[in-house]
Amino acid sequence: MAKHDVDLSLLFHALADPTRRSMLARLAEGPAQVSDLAAPTGLRLPTVMKHLGVLEDAGLIATSKDGRVRTCAIVPEALQPARSWLDEQRAIWEARLDRLDAFVTTMMKENDR
Amino acid sequence: MAKHDVDLSLLFHALADPTRRSMLARLAEGPAQVSDLAAPTGLRLPTVMKHLGVLEDAGLIATSKDGRVRTCAIVPEALQPARSWLDEQRAIWEARLDRLDAFVTTMMKENDR
Repeated sequence: MAKHDVDLSLLFHALADPTRRSMLARLAEGPAQVSDLAAPTGLRLPTVMKHLGVLEDAGLIATSKDGRVRTCAIVPEALQPARSWLDEQRAIWEARLDRLDAFVTTMMKENDR
Repeated sequence: MAKHDVDLSLLFHALADPTRRSMLARLAEGPAQVSDLAAPTGLRLPTVMKHLGVLEDAGLIATSKDGRVRTCAIVPEALQPARSWLDEQRAIWEARLDRLDAFVTTMMKENDR
């Protein structure tokens, strides 16, 4: 399997959870400490750390530690491969619609003769 | 959890697998029979059916049966919520960059005085 495929799978897997999506939405507004990210979820710290680990593995966040305080920050460009893949699918689909459209137009012209 | 959140989780989960993504890419070009979708994967039929089930649960494909032949078709608008979520994140992020930019500009003006 190509590396690109693995990355895209990790990315979509990281986005497939509402807790992780809400963490990303929070981090899009600015870096935050783990405790601040944990508070609104009502989850225990080990569970929160597991979610943050999935986001970090997918390259969506970066973390840094200062003493006992770990701060998380979003890596916004990491979402780009997901966006590109979705755009690609739309392009394939639209090209197909255009071909279908051209085909129907031709058929209608044939019928008019 | 809101229904929207559940749908989005199903959607991203469905996209988090290279086999399912390649099936969607194939279906973007037009409907196909299960056997045609299975062939390039080299997977056994039960595994293929499981992948198709995940895609169907996420609303990404629709299937119909004519005798013993099952045909699958893409539901292109089903990708829209994923695209909207990604656009939303980008908007939050860009709004933050704008605020940061405005802040830096103000600080520079203060320093010039």
